[in-house]
Amino acid sequence: MQLSEKVIEILAARNEKSRRIGELKQKMGLPLVDVNAERELRERVREVAERYGLDREFVQRLLTFVLAESVKQQYSDTKAATPKITHMDVFRKAKQLERSGRKIIHLEVGEPDFGAPAPVHEALSRAAISGYARYGEAKGLQELRTRIAEFLRERFGVDRHPEEVLVVPGGRFGVFVCAAALLSPGEEVVVIDPSWPLYKQVAHQLHSRPMIVRTKMEDGWIPRVEDVEGCISSVTRLLVLNYPNNPTGAVIDGKRLEEIVEVCRRRSIYVLSDEVYMDYCFGEFNSILELGYENALMLMSFSKSWGMTGYRIGFLVGSREVIERASSIQAMLMTCVPEFVQMAALKALDDLETPKRYGQIMRERVEEVCRMLDSMPVRYVKPKGGMYVFPKIEGLSIDSAELALRLLESKGVAIAPGSAFGDYVDYVRISTGTSIDEIREGLRRLKELLDQIR
Amino acid sequence: MQLSEKVIEILAARNEKSRRIGELKQKMGLPLVDVNAERELRERVREVAERYGLDREFVQRLLTFVLAESVKQQYSDTKAATPKITHMDVFRKAKQLERSGRKIIHLEVGEPDFGAPAPVHEALSRAAISGYARYGEAKGLQELRTRIAEFLRERFGVDRHPEEVLVVPGGRFGVFVCAAALLSPGEEVVVIDPSWPLYKQVAHQLHSRPMIVRTKMEDGWIPRVEDVEGCISSVTRLLVLNYPNNPTGAVIDGKRLEEIVEVCRRRSIYVLSDEVYMDYCFGEFNSILELGYENALMLMSFSKSWGMTGYRIGFLVGSREVIERASSIQAMLMTCVPEFVQMAALKALDDLETPKRYGQIMRERVEEVCRMLDSMPVRYVKPKGGMYVFPKIEGLSIDSAELALRLLESKGVAIAPGSAFGDYVDYVRISTGTSIDEIREGLRRLKELLDQIR
Repeated sequence: MQLSEKVIEILAARNEKSRRIGELKQKMGLPLVDVNAERELRERVREVAERYGLDREFVQRLLTFVLAESVKQQYSDTKAATPKITHMDVFRKAKQLERSGRKIIHLEVGEPDFGAPAPVHEALSRAAISGYARYGEAKGLQELRTRIAEFLRERFGVDRHPEEVLVVPGGRFGVFVCAAALLSPGEEVVVIDPSWPLYKQVAHQLHSRPMIVRTKMEDGWIPRVEDVEGCISSVTRLLVLNYPNNPTGAVIDGKRLEEIVEVCRRRSIYVLSDEVYMDYCFGEFNSILELGYENALMLMSFSKSWGMTGYRIGFLVGSREVIERASSIQAMLMTCVPEFVQMAALKALDDLETPKRYGQIMRERVEEVCRMLDSMPVRYVKPKGGMYVFPKIEGLSIDSAELALRLLESKGVAIAPGSAFGDYVDYVRISTGTSIDEIREGLRRLKELLDQIR
Repeated sequence: MQLSEKVIEILAARNEKSRRIGELKQKMGLPLVDVNAERELRERVREVAERYGLDREFVQRLLTFVLAESVKQQYSDTKAATPKITHMDVFRKAKQLERSGRKIIHLEVGEPDFGAPAPVHEALSRAAISGYARYGEAKGLQELRTRIAEFLRERFGVDRHPEEVLVVPGGRFGVFVCAAALLSPGEEVVVIDPSWPLYKQVAHQLHSRPMIVRTKMEDGWIPRVEDVEGCISSVTRLLVLNYPNNPTGAVIDGKRLEEIVEVCRRRSIYVLSDEVYMDYCFGEFNSILELGYENALMLMSFSKSWGMTGYRIGFLVGSREVIERASSIQAMLMTCVPEFVQMAALKALDDLETPKRYGQIMRERVEEVCRMLDSMPVRYVKPKGGMYVFPKIEGLSIDSAELALRLLESKGVAIAPGSAFGDYVDYVRISTGTSIDEIREGLRRLKELLDQIR
């Protein structure tokens, strides 16, 4: 017992130190997390652990636990530095205005306006009435998983077994269940910013730590291999990729993808490739599955390709072992995806025209956004896919969250500020989830505001 | 950095100690977790933390982290003591036999065979076709939450606001999202055994620690107030109740419920009352909501009352603050429950006859099980609700997992061994989810086997 008390005493001293270091770092304008110092510390602690015959994983997790507390201590004195307006304020405000009866043009949401094809609705109804409404296998209906394996063969020429497929209730849950199957508290996940906020949120939910590879517009939003490599430590367990990308619309080429996967392969790091925008790719699309990396996981959803947003269904593909673990967690938390929804998804897979049509419409909309942006004081990388454009507003005296709030209040147009996706305060994300006329009108008003405030 | 290394050194010494203590305890037949010693340690550590001005919660969580590791170290040398056959083996075997074409009588699953009423199916179809198939509010449709608040008023005479209701994708997810909203790693959850395995699983998933109040058949499976009190420590955050109970069928009376809630009230501990079997209560049913405790949460599902098992929908009721937090986690992991499913649930709430009818059928089945058990060498507490009977098999030379496996292999009847629900190796759970004829035949074969092996 004295031992435990001693640990507490040492931690007290450590936390006091952290507080003071935080103050110093802030004064000097340094980031609070020093990746290299941490890496050294980890190596040193690993040696100590080995010397004492301690469980390596436990010790690294304990260290992360303590480090996270240190960072929290450092942050506690730097709260004043956080911006006054966040992206959440913008989203809340949009809802509030709408409830009060004001008409809002939504260029902020990630939901296409397409809806599901009629045969999909009909399949759902038929399935519910004919009894697909009982507890089922956690992994999903055998019939659907077999059909998904076929789809992967036709689409990417890869040979996957139905047991390597997990039907999930939407892409979000797919990310969670995959991460939960792989991560222990204190382990790290590499996320490439700007990114859909979910990846970092899930890491936090699992008491893991997101490590950020920051990409730049100048690089076309594509991560450099050395930056990915530099972000990896001995407790890195997972790298998340997302192309076509939300929010930038970037698409990684096959060669760079291969190089990054090679970095992960050398260190046995899992790769989760979120490919939900695959059918909104304007050129060639490379799935991670084509690389044959055994620790790669691919996530797909029916929301974008078939407009089945509200159905909440997608699938995760990976090694049997990981799918088995993810499936156990899903069984625990969910039992299964409603089988009538699975039957609707099965019907969707018969229709390969709708995804192409939806992809073509998105392409036209994205091109229209780009055309209109070209007459504004912005810079951007022309998207190669996805349903967003992520321009940098030039010469602004306010940050983009404040811009978004003003646009909403004065012009009734909602856009997502860049801060939602990482440290990108000068950027905004414009979504093409609504009709081209709405998009045009929304951008006309954005231009109007920019002309006014500059 | 030296500080962190020092922590590791001390831990090394601590773990070595734990290993040796574990060996000693095992030799002496003592339980590995000594609740009183832990409580003292926590108090002492709390004092040290205060002396050094450390965050109290952080220190307690750290202590739990270290304690959990100690227990793991102790267990590592006692693995030989675990039984050879687990309940999972029985469930796997049942599936395997079924796949090989053998007809199995299922008295092990917790799914009623009723199915949803036709108007519910129809409401689902109509809703899907008329566009309830898009991303919706995480909390659930306003219309459904308002109707649920009305239902609570009519049923229990309580006045709850729709903002205090969260529509969840099934009871399992309801337990998870509630626990995730409340628990930090290292905090404790009091679970009353025998219990549905999920509560402990969710605690582990969240790196919290389930603390077990063991109830006895002799007490009618009702927890003693002093046992609940004795299980509470300074890091206890949540108590889980479940009446009518799975697996025992016990129903707590209003007075004992009030006493237990009073214990929690004094220490501001949250109470999650899983009331999914409320309509399978054979006498009076008391909801936790009637007690007006602000930290109480009530969980209900449509699976049992309306036979909507595969729909995956239920609801959680609690304070605005907790519902808000749970809703954020649900938004992150799920977006929302498919709105067509919510519309089906809305339809179900118009029908208060079906739950009564289903409850009456369950009562008859449970009574039939009891009648048949009366001619066997078993003891049990007659259920006051639920859809299970939990008898103790007397004078067995094998444990109940082995009995279940033999029953399955030699007679084609699946039952759940008591070990699935806690430390109850002489018990089995018999489910009444199937027709009365199947139940009769299954129990006839159980009697046959018992006669053979005794």
